[in-house]
Amino acid sequence: MALYVQKYGGSSVADAECMRRVAKRIYDTQRAGNQVVVVVSAMGDTTDDLIALAKQVNPEPNEREMDSLMATGEMASSAVLTMALHALGAKAISMTGHQAGIRVDGTHLKAKIEAINPKRIQKHLDQGQVVVVAGFQGTNPSEDIATLGRGGSDTTAVALAAALKADRCQILKDVDGVFTANPRVVPAARKLDEIAYEEMLELASCGAEVLQSRAVEFAKNYGVVLEVLSSFVVKPGTLVREEDEKMEQMIIRGIAADKNQAKATLLGVPDTPGVAARIFKALAAANLNVDMIVQNVSAAGVTDVSFTVAKDDIAKTKRVIEPLVKSVQAAGLNFDGDIAKVSLVGVGMKSHSGVAYRMFDVLAKHKINIEMISTSEIKISVAIRAQDADQAVRSLHQAFGMGAKAKKKAPAKKKAAQKKK
Amino acid sequence: MALYVQKYGGSSVADAECMRRVAKRIYDTQRAGNQVVVVVSAMGDTTDDLIALAKQVNPEPNEREMDSLMATGEMASSAVLTMALHALGAKAISMTGHQAGIRVDGTHLKAKIEAINPKRIQKHLDQGQVVVVAGFQGTNPSEDIATLGRGGSDTTAVALAAALKADRCQILKDVDGVFTANPRVVPAARKLDEIAYEEMLELASCGAEVLQSRAVEFAKNYGVVLEVLSSFVVKPGTLVREEDEKMEQMIIRGIAADKNQAKATLLGVPDTPGVAARIFKALAAANLNVDMIVQNVSAAGVTDVSFTVAKDDIAKTKRVIEPLVKSVQAAGLNFDGDIAKVSLVGVGMKSHSGVAYRMFDVLAKHKINIEMISTSEIKISVAIRAQDADQAVRSLHQAFGMGAKAKKKAPAKKKAAQKKK
Repeated sequence: MALYVQKYGGSSVADAECMRRVAKRIYDTQRAGNQVVVVVSAMGDTTDDLIALAKQVNPEPNEREMDSLMATGEMASSAVLTMALHALGAKAISMTGHQAGIRVDGTHLKAKIEAINPKRIQKHLDQGQVVVVAGFQGTNPSEDIATLGRGGSDTTAVALAAALKADRCQILKDVDGVFTANPRVVPAARKLDEIAYEEMLELASCGAEVLQSRAVEFAKNYGVVLEVLSSFVVKPGTLVREEDEKMEQMIIRGIAADKNQAKATLLGVPDTPGVAARIFKALAAANLNVDMIVQNVSAAGVTDVSFTVAKDDIAKTKRVIEPLVKSVQAAGLNFDGDIAKVSLVGVGMKSHSGVAYRMFDVLAKHKINIEMISTSEIKISVAIRAQDADQAVRSLHQAFGMGAKAKKKAPAKKKAAQKKK
Repeated sequence: MALYVQKYGGSSVADAECMRRVAKRIYDTQRAGNQVVVVVSAMGDTTDDLIALAKQVNPEPNEREMDSLMATGEMASSAVLTMALHALGAKAISMTGHQAGIRVDGTHLKAKIEAINPKRIQKHLDQGQVVVVAGFQGTNPSEDIATLGRGGSDTTAVALAAALKADRCQILKDVDGVFTANPRVVPAARKLDEIAYEEMLELASCGAEVLQSRAVEFAKNYGVVLEVLSSFVVKPGTLVREEDEKMEQMIIRGIAADKNQAKATLLGVPDTPGVAARIFKALAAANLNVDMIVQNVSAAGVTDVSFTVAKDDIAKTKRVIEPLVKSVQAAGLNFDGDIAKVSLVGVGMKSHSGVAYRMFDVLAKHKINIEMISTSEIKISVAIRAQDADQAVRSLHQAFGMGAKAKKKAPAKKKAAQKKK
C-alpha cells in the first residue's frame, strides 16, 4: 500500500463538475489500494475575486486580514471536494491548514511552513479515509492564519508528503507535465519525462509557472519525489527527482520567460563603499526578493544601480527605497515594468561550455538587446524588452534543438570523457 | 466608556459599498467614546450560494463538511469589514469564531455555545481596537468548526455581550425594529419601542424572523439588554428587556406567521400506552424540534398522531420515523407542507381572558379553518392552510387594535385591579 499526496489546483476544481471528476480520480487512486491525502486550491478564480473585493474596500488591505480572507477559498474547496467524495461512496474528511497541523512563521502573505504535526491526518488515514487538506495556509505563533503566497498549495502538498513520508507527491494540473518551454509560446515544445530538482528549481524561480520554487526546494531537501501530471487525463507526467545517469541527456532542459519583473534603477548614487549594502539590506529586511543586479560604470563619482523585483512588489519597493534615496544622496528612483527575464536552464551546462555565447548570439541575430545578465552554475538569464520575450524563447528553443528527444544520459564513466572545458 | 456589541446581518454587508457604510457606523460609535465588538454575518446571499454549491456535488452533504463550508462566509466578511475600518483610519482586527474563543458543543448545523473565553478580544479592546468577530460559528471539542444554525450570528453577538459584560447588544438590520406584525403583510403594523424578553422569545419561535429565539433566550438568561435597530438610519430601534411597569401596556404585543412548517401525520397508530413516547423520544434524540402535537380521538383502537416540524427537517423526520411506522404497527406516514402557523403573543394575556375566543372568532368570520392549536401562558398559535396566513394576520392585527399606540402600563397597584379572570 502506497501513500500518495495529490494536489489539485484551482482550475481543476473550478466548478461542481470539475469537483466530481477530481473526486473520481482520487477515489480511483484509493481503490487501487493506496492511501491518499489531497491538497486543494481555491476554486477557479476565487482567490482573485477575494483580492478584488478587498481592494474595493481598501486599496492597501492589511496583510493579516488579507490572509484571513484568502484562506477561506481553500477551506471552502476542501469541504466541497470532500462532499463530492462522499457522493461517490468514499470515506473522506476535510481539514483546514490549522486542523492538519500546519504551523507557519509570522510572515503574512508569504509565510513559511515551520512544522507539521500530521497526527490528526494519520489517524484518519488509518481509518481508511481520504484526507482533504486546504492548501496555501497554516497557523502562525500568534494563532493567526497566514498564507504561503501564490502557488503555496504546492508547498503544502510537498511539506505534507515529507511529514507523512509519502511515496509520491503528485501535482495535478491543467497541463500534462513540465515542458521544454511554454507550449502556448513555442508549439514545438515537448513534455519532459524527468527533470532534476535543481533544474526545476531554476525554472520555477525564472517564471515557469508549473511549480512554485519553494515547493521544489522543499521536495529537494526532503527527497520527496514529485510528479507533475494532467488532472484531466490519466497518463504519466514529469517526474521531478534527484539527477542520475539514467536521466535523458540535455544541455538545456528548459526555457522560461518571466514577464512579471520590473527593473528598479536608483540614479546618481555616490560611488562610495557601503551604499549598495545599505540598499540591499533594506530590501532584504522588507522580505523583497531581488533577482538581477547591475551597477553601471562609475562616472564623476556617481553610478546607477539597477535591480529587478516582482511587479507586484513595486509599491513596497518604493516605500523601502525612497527614504534611502535621500539618505544616500542619490538623484532619484525609477521603475521600468516593460522588461522580461528569459532564462536557459540545464544541469548539462556544468559540462558544456559556450552556452552563454550561443544564447547571446541567437538574441543578437534577432536584434534583441540584452539589458541585464545573471548566471548560476546551471542557468543563464537575460533581461530584455518585454515585447521581445516570445520571439526570444522561440528562437532559443529552436537553436538549442530542444524539440527533439535526446538519448538517455550515458553511463557515468563515459560522461566524464564528454566534458569540454 | 460603554462597551457595545453590534451585530450586522448579511444584507447590511452585502457589497463593498455596504461594508463602507457599516464601517463608518462602527467607527462613529467608537469615536463617540465607546468600545465596540462587531459580529458580522456572511455577505448577502453567500450562505445560500454555498449551500447551493454543496448540493450540486452532493444532495445530502455531510453536516461536518457543511459547517466547514458555511463558516467561511462569516470569516471572509469579518476580514473585509476590518479592511473597510482600516480604510477609515480605525484600528481594528478580525477574528474567526475559534480565535474569539467561542467553544460550542458537538452538534453540527445547530451547535450550542458552551463557553466563551474572551481573553483575546479583551486584549485588543484594551488596545483601542474594534474587534470584528465572524458570527455563526465556534470550535467544538473535536477541534472541528460547527455553526449555530440560521440566524446564529445573533446568538454569537448576545453570547459575546454576556461574556464581555457589554452595556448593550445592538442587532442592526434592514428593518427599523420589532413590529406588531410583518409590515410587508400588514401595512398598519407599527414599530414597538420595547418588548419583553418572553414576548420576543415567543415571537421568534413562532416565525418572526427579526431575531433568533436562541439569541433572545441567551439575552434573557444573562440579562443582556438587546436593541433591534436599523443599520441604514441612525435612530432608536426596539429594546428587548425585562418586563416592568414602565413598558407600554398591550394585550397582544405581536403577531407572527410561520410558513416554514410542515405537518407530519402518523396514520393508524395503535392506541396503546407508550407509543407516543417512543415517537417523540426518537424525534428528540435526532435533535428535531417538534412544535404542535395533535392526537385524534381514537376509533377502533387506532388513532392518528400529527405534529409540526420545520419544512427543512422533512427528510430527516422521515428517516427517523419510518422505521417506527413498522415497529409500532402504524398504517403509514404523510407530510403536509401547505400549512402555516399564526401566533398571537403578549404578556398581557396573563391578565386578560378571552384572547383565544376572540382569535378563533375572527378566523371563523373569515372562514379560515383551524387545524391545530397550541398555547402557552403568553401565546396562542393555530395551524391553518398556508394560503390563509396573510389574511389571518391582517384580520387579527385589526381586530386586536394593534396599529394604534396604547398607554404606558399602569403602576403596579392599579394593574392588579385590572385583572379579569
